[in-house]
Amino acid sequence: MNLKRLNEIMLPAIEEELKNQVARLNEPRTSPFYDMLTYHMGWTGAGAGKHATGKRIRPLMTLLACASFGASWQPALPAAAAIELAHNFSLAHDDVQDNSDLRRGRLTLWKIWGAPMAINAGDALFVLAQQAIEDLQKSYPPKVTLRAASIFNDVCLDLTRGQYLDMSYEKRNDLTVEDYRPMIGGKTSALLSACTQIGALLGGAKAAQQEAYRLFGYHLGMAFQIQDDILGVWGNEALTGKSAVSDLVEGKNTLPILYGVRRGGDFARRWQQGKVSAEEAGELARQLASEGAKIYAEESAAQETEQALLYLEKAKPQGEAGAALLELANALLGRAQ
Amino acid sequence: MNLKRLNEIMLPAIEEELKNQVARLNEPRTSPFYDMLTYHMGWTGAGAGKHATGKRIRPLMTLLACASFGASWQPALPAAAAIELAHNFSLAHDDVQDNSDLRRGRLTLWKIWGAPMAINAGDALFVLAQQAIEDLQKSYPPKVTLRAASIFNDVCLDLTRGQYLDMSYEKRNDLTVEDYRPMIGGKTSALLSACTQIGALLGGAKAAQQEAYRLFGYHLGMAFQIQDDILGVWGNEALTGKSAVSDLVEGKNTLPILYGVRRGGDFARRWQQGKVSAEEAGELARQLASEGAKIYAEESAAQETEQALLYLEKAKPQGEAGAALLELANALLGRAQ
Repeated sequence: MNLKRLNEIMLPAIEEELKNQVARLNEPRTSPFYDMLTYHMGWTGAGAGKHATGKRIRPLMTLLACASFGASWQPALPAAAAIELAHNFSLAHDDVQDNSDLRRGRLTLWKIWGAPMAINAGDALFVLAQQAIEDLQKSYPPKVTLRAASIFNDVCLDLTRGQYLDMSYEKRNDLTVEDYRPMIGGKTSALLSACTQIGALLGGAKAAQQEAYRLFGYHLGMAFQIQDDILGVWGNEALTGKSAVSDLVEGKNTLPILYGVRRGGDFARRWQQGKVSAEEAGELARQLASEGAKIYAEESAAQETEQALLYLEKAKPQGEAGAALLELANALLGRAQ
Repeated sequence: MNLKRLNEIMLPAIEEELKNQVARLNEPRTSPFYDMLTYHMGWTGAGAGKHATGKRIRPLMTLLACASFGASWQPALPAAAAIELAHNFSLAHDDVQDNSDLRRGRLTLWKIWGAPMAINAGDALFVLAQQAIEDLQKSYPPKVTLRAASIFNDVCLDLTRGQYLDMSYEKRNDLTVEDYRPMIGGKTSALLSACTQIGALLGGAKAAQQEAYRLFGYHLGMAFQIQDDILGVWGNEALTGKSAVSDLVEGKNTLPILYGVRRGGDFARRWQQGKVSAEEAGELARQLASEGAKIYAEESAAQETEQALLYLEKAKPQGEAGAALLELANALLGRAQ
């Protein structure tokens, strides 16, 4: 209820802020470059619209975190936009790195304009993210703006570390579930922890509350990613915009797959023999589930969510935004149900 | 004289600051990732050393600009490092985008670790650049730090615009010399203008002096790039670490080449017929020179340098650093002589 109401108010404001931030790139001589960014953000080109933009969960979480300390969320919009731009920067590069053809059911940037242009478009999104953070000066003291920038860039560095681990894991089949957390900590949790921590900072939260919010975002990110891993093996293409069973075919080291490897059963034997074809993937997914990997991953996601909610509670979020933040966390866990 | 003396003092300090900034990435689990960055910075791996690091002209210029207003240059080191890191970020991505095997005579990042890793290493360098800028807070008021960050990210956005134009020009053979400046303005001049403008800001210069320094750096960047274009057609491999005549073979739209196209003579006819082989390049370079392109480019570089020096003079640089800045500008123009 709270989430739906606030979502309806905040989402248009987020989209407007994002458009204003990206408009910095809109100059006559480089307009096709600008078009790449508006396509990637989901605003223009084939398949543009609500499905293409994604749910803007990160900026929403930033604003809700801010408002849950009783502060006005509008001045925090540049921070919300910065995090979403950084997320989109990482997606643009990720698609090149993973050789992915589709993102949210649409052709990826590099698939349309080529890898060199997509790398550059990603770079521009990251610069725009930095400029968005700097815009916080319009409403907050310089020291608060610099603190937000510091949190933001710390997690961006974590993001590159997580990406490094993810890519370095691709060629290995000796990994265990213990190798999973440092990767996801960087790839997914870091950015979500920035949403909640920066939101709390801008909401005027005390240091201990900011730290609790950081951990709330971190564990929520873990839960969110494990959920994504489950969809990556047993998911539904219509729901995710990615082809189902792709993680098996792509040889990704996701949590359920690493669990299966550790079990050392029929799944592990097949996995270690090398590349899985699209034809085999359905049967292999069933095998992996029968060895308990799906239940294990679901329980892990539930545990991370529980942790997240404990930290959220600890920081005593207030009012409608606080309730909405709790709703959002629950919705994220159950999004494929 | 002045330049040599200050260079000897400043260069080790720049190198130390760069190493401290890059060390943020040095964590046990991701140490091979850190190795990629130290290799790219010229500190480790095959061919490491003075030749591999490059001349650090940008950080040197930042510190000289700062000191030429009578201020101490040591507190400006994080800004100098930030600009050099951003330069190296752009080189890492540029090498992927251009498919270049060699950089300063060494294998490029992507050639050793693959394009996905090189993209990510470039991203990390850019985050480190942002963190370096934030370190200015240790010595300067928050507002000055935010102003430096704002100048820095404005030119980073210009950098992506210049890169877009450069790449979009590759497939075209209808360009004229007028299309050249917007591209180079972004690709090379922008970052050099940030060196001199941020240096002046941190040196306590007045607004008009900061603007004059910005234009000094901008025109110097133009001169520097045109010089590089001349080397790209008629240069010497031992001097540049790139293979000579590569710009003709790679079909780049550099200033002398665009001049030759506009002339519409024998060079233009051959150029518009398509790809130039390595065997043809020597003869085609001679043809291009005989049509006046080398003299035109040399005169353009000289004009840009003159402009640069006029702006430098206008801002009245002081003392040994001021004299060294003038020496550096002259050295940059004459570096291949």
